[in-house]
Amino acid sequence: MSFLKTCVVAGTGPGNGAAIARAFSKEGFHVALLSRSNTFTSSLASELGNATAITCDLSDEISIAQAAKKIESECPPVEVLVFNAGGASTFRPGTLLDIQPSELIKSISARSMGPLALSQHLLPGMVERKKGSVLFTGATASLRGSANFAFVAIPSFSCKALAESMAREFMPKGIHVSHIVLDGAVESERARQWMPNAGPDDLIQPKDVAANYVMLHNQPRSTWTFELVLRPAVEKW
Amino acid sequence: MSFLKTCVVAGTGPGNGAAIARAFSKEGFHVALLSRSNTFTSSLASELGNATAITCDLSDEISIAQAAKKIESECPPVEVLVFNAGGASTFRPGTLLDIQPSELIKSISARSMGPLALSQHLLPGMVERKKGSVLFTGATASLRGSANFAFVAIPSFSCKALAESMAREFMPKGIHVSHIVLDGAVESERARQWMPNAGPDDLIQPKDVAANYVMLHNQPRSTWTFELVLRPAVEKW
Amino acid sequence: MSFLKTCVVAGTGPGNGAAIARAFSKEGFHVALLSRSNTFTSSLASELGNATAITCDLSDEISIAQAAKKIESECPPVEVLVFNAGGASTFRPGTLLDIQPSELIKSISARSMGPLALSQHLLPGMVERKKGSVLFTGATASLRGSANFAFVAIPSFSCKALAESMAREFMPKGIHVSHIVLDGAVESERARQWMPNAGPDDLIQPKDVAANYVMLHNQPRSTWTFELVLRPAVEKW
Amino acid sequence: MSFLKTCVVAGTGPGNGAAIARAFSKEGFHVALLSRSNTFTSSLASELGNATAITCDLSDEISIAQAAKKIESECPPVEVLVFNAGGASTFRPGTLLDIQPSELIKSISARSMGPLALSQHLLPGMVERKKGSVLFTGATASLRGSANFAFVAIPSFSCKALAESMAREFMPKGIHVSHIVLDGAVESERARQWMPNAGPDDLIQPKDVAANYVMLHNQPRSTWTFELVLRPAVEKW
Repeated sequence: MSFLKTCVVAGTGPGNGAAIARAFSKEGFHVALLSRSNTFTSSLASELGNATAITCDLSDEISIAQAAKKIESECPPVEVLVFNAGGASTFRPGTLLDIQPSELIKSISARSMGPLALSQHLLPGMVERKKGSVLFTGATASLRGSANFAFVAIPSFSCKALAESMAREFMPKGIHVSHIVLDGAVESERARQWMPNAGPDDLIQPKDVAANYVMLHNQPRSTWTFELVLRPAVEKW
Repeated sequence: MSFLKTCVVAGTGPGNGAAIARAFSKEGFHVALLSRSNTFTSSLASELGNATAITCDLSDEISIAQAAKKIESECPPVEVLVFNAGGASTFRPGTLLDIQPSELIKSISARSMGPLALSQHLLPGMVERKKGSVLFTGATASLRGSANFAFVAIPSFSCKALAESMAREFMPKGIHVSHIVLDGAVESERARQWMPNAGPDDLIQPKDVAANYVMLHNQPRSTWTFELVLRPAVEKW
Repeated sequence: MSFLKTCVVAGTGPGNGAAIARAFSKEGFHVALLSRSNTFTSSLASELGNATAITCDLSDEISIAQAAKKIESECPPVEVLVFNAGGASTFRPGTLLDIQPSELIKSISARSMGPLALSQHLLPGMVERKKGSVLFTGATASLRGSANFAFVAIPSFSCKALAESMAREFMPKGIHVSHIVLDGAVESERARQWMPNAGPDDLIQPKDVAANYVMLHNQPRSTWTFELVLRPAVEKW
Repeated sequence: MSFLKTCVVAGTGPGNGAAIARAFSKEGFHVALLSRSNTFTSSLASELGNATAITCDLSDEISIAQAAKKIESECPPVEVLVFNAGGASTFRPGTLLDIQPSELIKSISARSMGPLALSQHLLPGMVERKKGSVLFTGATASLRGSANFAFVAIPSFSCKALAESMAREFMPKGIHVSHIVLDGAVESERARQWMPNAGPDDLIQPKDVAANYVMLHNQPRSTWTFELVLRPAVEKW
């Protein structure tokens, strides 16, 4: 394989981010792994080969500009751009009276301002090459603002607004923009603690998520999907 | 290939229905081709081999019962059930004041009562075998009731209600139920007359629709999609 | 008061229908009370004065034509038309495998074909007089197809499609079309049996529903609402 | 009238904000008029009497805390809290490639962080008094992310997420939370320049908007509406 194209995964943790990186790597992409710290991404880059680990804080405009410069100088042309920052890993549900306004702004920034800023660097090239996909990871909180979930709903809605505006502007220019909603618990140690009796497919499997991202990138141009909701067969909705 | 499983396509015209039948046939399915008249389906069945053409009027309960009996006695076990009756082929937009109530009921029946009745015959076996997909074809009129489109919106909404109720009842029992919304004009001679300057991918291509149906049937169980909206890259929405 | 205008309530039972009739009667409307049987509506008509009880089966086109003729010959010009047929009073949730197709068609007819047919008789006059409202009663099942609720979701979605198509066609012609979604249990003896501990406002009060219908009819023309969801303060959604 | 209760209007310009303030003033409320500059609000406060003009930048947490303190020390108890910051007055549609990330964050802050922070100060008292409404003004961009409208869609979606989360948490505690979507152009000199032939009701009239806000505050507890979309009769949607 020639690795003449890059898949950027912005927000590469050990769950969905890593699975998505692995899946596009197998499809012949060089992968750029963006994360606030490079502890995990460096070892993942070594494992994959043809991969670059880049530190990037998606809530910080300057950090994003530096990451964009690195991607453009060190990686093949970008064909896929994945925004996978969820950062809900440490989230605990709670009344909106207790939300710290500054933390909320940081989280919103990482879900909308950051993806916008990075796209401003990378989209023009994709449009010029007339090919590419921008894939945003959302969650149940992208679909509804629930009691005790304001802290994730507000950033998630801001992300969806960006994705939808981008889709309507850039799909006619040949860029496939999708918003993927993971409507269920994703497989993880923490999820298994809550749901000890869950069967193997009752939690969303990162490798299955990744297969759907690759599918979206390859979806035929006459039948593009903007919003793709994914949930386990057993999930209540 | 062994053809030990059947894909039923209820509503098999020369566009999406035929493409879906061809696609599942290539995947190793026996296909049961249901249509009000068997002129087209007989010749398609001959072309495909391992196919059965069955006349069926989806607005008529008795005709459905007869078709179900034929499927169950002459075909391998049903694994995929596609409801593709649109029947909008002769539709002309117009004020709701001009709709014939009896024609409306016939159209609603073909989109909800009929699919329900056929499912009542075939779903129990699929549940018992713990495997299968039921795929409903929808359209823009499934998403919104527009001026001058009441005649298609009312049946389309009734179909979506059935699909969504079925999904919530049967997904936890292992049956993947999807509602596919074709949000754009489908390639056809008539569509080309309206849009003579459309590029090759500017109209929905039936073979691309069919690829998405096969994808849905094969979607991993931890990441099932209920509603899949498909539209050309250039479509305004 | 002069009673120079009529409010038609199609589907007048002792709950919301009667409350809506009372509220418009107080606003100075003659009320036409349509119901399959005239047992209840006759006594309500006597109570209200300036009211006409008319038998009408909304699933039967001929019965509708007769009712329309009676309204047009015996009542002042129609200014408000309320479709309040729910008929869920005897509904018991259950698997869609047990739905009788013919009963489903009857229920769909009463929720979409019937309201369409009656509107075909009465709307042209309202448009000519450039004034009027058509108000459709919906329910939770208008918003989602749930497991075991297919029998109400399918007719409810068909009703919403009619309302939305009518709104988009007739609002620009000066007719206010609204779809009111009652997203909660309505006060009734049966509801109190299920929820014996419900507070006075925890169930939807028919008089409150009626106040919202009057509000919609009086809503200023520069700020019309199509869909109005009503739910008790305590309701989970 | 006794003016024993306050209506806070956060975002009081000469259009909807002033109309809402006038309407609640007529209903017997003391009104607190929050705006970044007090040029307009001071003169409106003089006109109304029983009104307090308070400078407040809703994108600045410290400014909000100061405004909250002033409201709590100088005004009667808060019963209605209106978030009317749109700030789209200077907005020009344009590609998302040209959005300044820092301006986007400022706008998001004013639509979600700011309303959250002010609510954190004022909601606990409303909950204690078991009475009150929080009303958020939204726009077409709250419903969909359109091409060239990312700059308003992202803040608008963040506002809707806050409103919906707040509704689900606080409605059961007796606070009516609503998100009002103005789906059309609002009457203004600028709007008349775009649409010189618009009739008197073809643009949303601020006094009509205000009447709907008062209606929502008075809506009976058994039939509360969360989202209220308002559009002119002639509007395409």
